[in-house]
Amino acid sequence: MSPGRVFAVPAGRSEPTPERRLAELGLELPALRPKAGLYEGWVPAGELLFLSGQGADGWTGRVGEDLTLEQGRLAARDCALNLLAQTRHALGSLDRVAQVVKVTGFVACGPAFGDVPAVVDGASALLVELFGDRGRHARSAVGVVALPLGFAVEVEMVVQVRPPG
Amino acid sequence: MSPGRVFAVPAGRSEPTPERRLAELGLELPALRPKAGLYEGWVPAGELLFLSGQGADGWTGRVGEDLTLEQGRLAARDCALNLLAQTRHALGSLDRVAQVVKVTGFVACGPAFGDVPAVVDGASALLVELFGDRGRHARSAVGVVALPLGFAVEVEMVVQVRPPG
Amino acid sequence: MSPGRVFAVPAGRSEPTPERRLAELGLELPALRPKAGLYEGWVPAGELLFLSGQGADGWTGRVGEDLTLEQGRLAARDCALNLLAQTRHALGSLDRVAQVVKVTGFVACGPAFGDVPAVVDGASALLVELFGDRGRHARSAVGVVALPLGFAVEVEMVVQVRPPG
Repeated sequence: MSPGRVFAVPAGRSEPTPERRLAELGLELPALRPKAGLYEGWVPAGELLFLSGQGADGWTGRVGEDLTLEQGRLAARDCALNLLAQTRHALGSLDRVAQVVKVTGFVACGPAFGDVPAVVDGASALLVELFGDRGRHARSAVGVVALPLGFAVEVEMVVQVRPPG
Repeated sequence: MSPGRVFAVPAGRSEPTPERRLAELGLELPALRPKAGLYEGWVPAGELLFLSGQGADGWTGRVGEDLTLEQGRLAARDCALNLLAQTRHALGSLDRVAQVVKVTGFVACGPAFGDVPAVVDGASALLVELFGDRGRHARSAVGVVALPLGFAVEVEMVVQVRPPG
Repeated sequence: MSPGRVFAVPAGRSEPTPERRLAELGLELPALRPKAGLYEGWVPAGELLFLSGQGADGWTGRVGEDLTLEQGRLAARDCALNLLAQTRHALGSLDRVAQVVKVTGFVACGPAFGDVPAVVDGASALLVELFGDRGRHARSAVGVVALPLGFAVEVEMVVQVRPPG
């Protein structure tokens, strides 16, 4: 009962950890965003870590109207970076993520917008890029009428955590 | 702490398994739908299986406008069939479902539409029909502005799995 | 990996339990609302309890149009009271809640409404008031086009449960 996709890793080369991969890509995680209300950025429950929905500063309005699809994808990617900043804050290191389990992407848009999955792919692609198979997740994506602070995209996540050490 | 509803089963008749019940109803699970983005159809985490939101091909538009309530219910039922196809793909058999835990139903509709629960019941009724008490689930249902590929309904699910054998 | 906020409790005074706190506040939990469809109010899975989305009777329409922000907050608070009634029904006592893990708030509103977090805070504030640190939760909040029965707010919740005794 595992997603069970195995990528061949060339002999003599071990797969880089998510933290090393992040550095290789020249990416840095942003500072934790200030909270928009009375909630925590993350709460653990057993081996699961539940992360609050994150928007991305600078990306407001409706995708397909105020923002292009490509801008929506960048917004979703920034949401994922904010989620990863919370994940590192919770776990000390992204390397403690055993599996990204579930992602839910909310996209502010109008009724005629059908490209919701392509927007949320901006978040999903980054997760797979950093975590490889461990980044492959179940997902739902929906178009909503309004998001906190006028955000164009909001993404939440559940990850499975491996024990420390 | 169990839903704790017990249906009397007539003596000498054991309750059919979900797979047998499916056959009795003359239902076949559809082929796995092609993915609309960079996600997996399902990811396990401990004893839980998280299933990605599924739409249903052929059912697009807004319920209450482009589709009648009854068509919306059929769309939701088809979403459930797609979820069950993913479940069997993950577990090998529907009989390994210990409990359907949570269903979330998203219905594309306009602001005046109040029958969201009746639409999502199309999915819930099938789950209870197949799994009996093990199909009785917690649920949220909301009306949204747009769904992937213009789908009228999208349903996601979390199930608890029993160990193999 | 705990939220890890510790409030100093004055010596010689132990923190009141959620049930005692509820009484101190002069609050009573409402009767279980009739279900709007084919679902259960709650389903347990391991140490987690999944609670169905709850609306609040008397609060219909769209926040920011038919309801003020303050009315929206009261609606969200009533949703939380309905969730707590379900929680006590499931567990026998609110004191068995180990942690409120995740809250998702859906707010019916128009596209220009940006105060979704302030609305859902009406639910979050009550949870923290009753449970203290154990009430601090991860959260997502989104604005949707329509909710069941025309509700203005719907809130769902996942809690972690401590063993009985």
